[in-house]
Amino acid sequence: MSFIETDTLTHKMILQQKFELYKQKIDDSINTFRLPIGGPNTLYEPFQYLLDGGGKRLRPILTLAATSVGDGNYEEALSSGIAIEILHNFTLVHDDIMDKAPIRRGRETIHSKWNEAVGVLTGDVMMGYAYKLLGAYSNHKNFSLILDAFTTGLIEVCEGQAFDLEFHDSISNNNNVGKKEYLKMIEKKTAKLLEMSAVIGGLIANCTNEQISSLRTFALNLGIGFQIQDDYLDLYGEQEKVGKKIGKDLIEGKKTFQIVSAIELATKPEHKKFLEYYCSNKGITEQEIPYMKEIFEELSIEEVSITTAERYFTASQESIKLFSDKAKNELEFFLTLLANRAF
Amino acid sequence: MSFIETDTLTHKMILQQKFELYKQKIDDSINTFRLPIGGPNTLYEPFQYLLDGGGKRLRPILTLAATSVGDGNYEEALSSGIAIEILHNFTLVHDDIMDKAPIRRGRETIHSKWNEAVGVLTGDVMMGYAYKLLGAYSNHKNFSLILDAFTTGLIEVCEGQAFDLEFHDSISNNNNVGKKEYLKMIEKKTAKLLEMSAVIGGLIANCTNEQISSLRTFALNLGIGFQIQDDYLDLYGEQEKVGKKIGKDLIEGKKTFQIVSAIELATKPEHKKFLEYYCSNKGITEQEIPYMKEIFEELSIEEVSITTAERYFTASQESIKLFSDKAKNELEFFLTLLANRAF
Repeated sequence: MSFIETDTLTHKMILQQKFELYKQKIDDSINTFRLPIGGPNTLYEPFQYLLDGGGKRLRPILTLAATSVGDGNYEEALSSGIAIEILHNFTLVHDDIMDKAPIRRGRETIHSKWNEAVGVLTGDVMMGYAYKLLGAYSNHKNFSLILDAFTTGLIEVCEGQAFDLEFHDSISNNNNVGKKEYLKMIEKKTAKLLEMSAVIGGLIANCTNEQISSLRTFALNLGIGFQIQDDYLDLYGEQEKVGKKIGKDLIEGKKTFQIVSAIELATKPEHKKFLEYYCSNKGITEQEIPYMKEIFEELSIEEVSITTAERYFTASQESIKLFSDKAKNELEFFLTLLANRAF
Repeated sequence: MSFIETDTLTHKMILQQKFELYKQKIDDSINTFRLPIGGPNTLYEPFQYLLDGGGKRLRPILTLAATSVGDGNYEEALSSGIAIEILHNFTLVHDDIMDKAPIRRGRETIHSKWNEAVGVLTGDVMMGYAYKLLGAYSNHKNFSLILDAFTTGLIEVCEGQAFDLEFHDSISNNNNVGKKEYLKMIEKKTAKLLEMSAVIGGLIANCTNEQISSLRTFALNLGIGFQIQDDYLDLYGEQEKVGKKIGKDLIEGKKTFQIVSAIELATKPEHKKFLEYYCSNKGITEQEIPYMKEIFEELSIEEVSITTAERYFTASQESIKLFSDKAKNELEFFLTLLANRAF
């Protein structure tokens, strides 16, 4: 999927450097983040293991980039960025327990390497440290708004995960697992955390209410497009770039954008039957993937996915058109990073 | 265990009424607390089930009582009291998953009634709602201190639970599961949440730093005494009052105050051997309880427990001697409630 090219190569390189700097600053902050040395080791060893695990840092990078809309003091936003990255990792630790996932980013998950109790508790204490980091803004005039945005993000992401659990467990019929429910789920589970990341950056940089509102729309649409694309890459990406088995979502029985679209569009009885089987069976085998791809092919699901993701990316871009060139460049570069990714 | 009698009956009745009012106000606030009606039900049904489950509300009662040290406006402290009660319940939900406990307060635990994923996620979203409630103090001059006290409480209680897990899993020897480790564990797991409850009440009522410091000492000692007494009641309480099977802790292999004291005091080889067996076996059978009680009897563990708990209760009472009579009466009444309880 290719989308929005920045105008000149030099211009792109400067932005590239800026975003590398953002990532470097975030990684440095995380690397210098010190956990208590007196233990309990049961808690702080897995927490440290997570901090050492790396990651793309997309959310805190967005927080830093969002400061360009306001006073541009991105260094001030670093603490909140780390808090957001910890919140994101907390959701992964607990989600992996719920999904019984053994591997994350090529490493054992906490509950696999230790046990479930350690996984639950490590996630819990991470929330505490995230809120501690937000204490850095106690003298900021937007302190209570920053906190409220963060807490809203926490609640929304829990709601998203709950919708995901419900969605996964429900037997398919067009009434209860349609595209509407899919969009509600990914909005809460994925997009709201990006929205929060952008909003907090804006609040720290003293943005106006209108700017915050535009940042919100920007990140929300970006997040929805991002997730639709994520589902797309599971099936149409290149395995070495995506870093996981192609069709993994289908084997796990996930209600991806492609599945809900196919359920909506299918008319042939044999297609409908196979999609129903997919839902009631909660997934298919690797051998059955080619047949599912055939169904998708006949229903033009690949094109529907690309068009829909691009529609969200366009809405995202539209929402920031009144920003300064500097801010627009940074946010569009971020959008491009996500929209053009093959990983 | 009997401790500190208030001077006159009338005086006691007035305080009794005041504390009943506190409890009533807390229950009313919890009953009118509204969760989103749009779902996800996976999240809000178990949360509502918890809100409906009642409880002694000791922690928010302490928060309300602590306001008497300052401006006495206890109604202002209600939101924080509910936040603290939600935090306390969040720890119970997650602890019950870790301990695989099927029953709590005579009702099925969340993970038993639903499943583990629901238990993890319900606990998580509860933290979000607790922080939302603290947003009520965003215009309070002590807002950042209130939040910081709350977050510190969250971290400490996770650390306490982690020490408990480590403590339970370790094989006994005097070096690593002694009374010192026991005290560190219960301080974090039990006492720090009481400390936080008192401190937040004090902060909301605009107490001075000295008053906050005294409230801290009061609640911390009270919490330690409370836990030692809790361990005591498991073995020496009356079953119908305690509401659980006598000796349950011993069957579960908990390292109670009595166990760590006995390990410290035992000299006879057969006693030492049985205590080692208790630790390595992670508990004993109901039939073995009388023999453990014999050991305790010979080592005067019952008296040691009472004396130690009373020492902490006295330290608690001592720490508030400079408070006004009104505040002293309320906090001493609370102390008496806990110290004289048989439940």
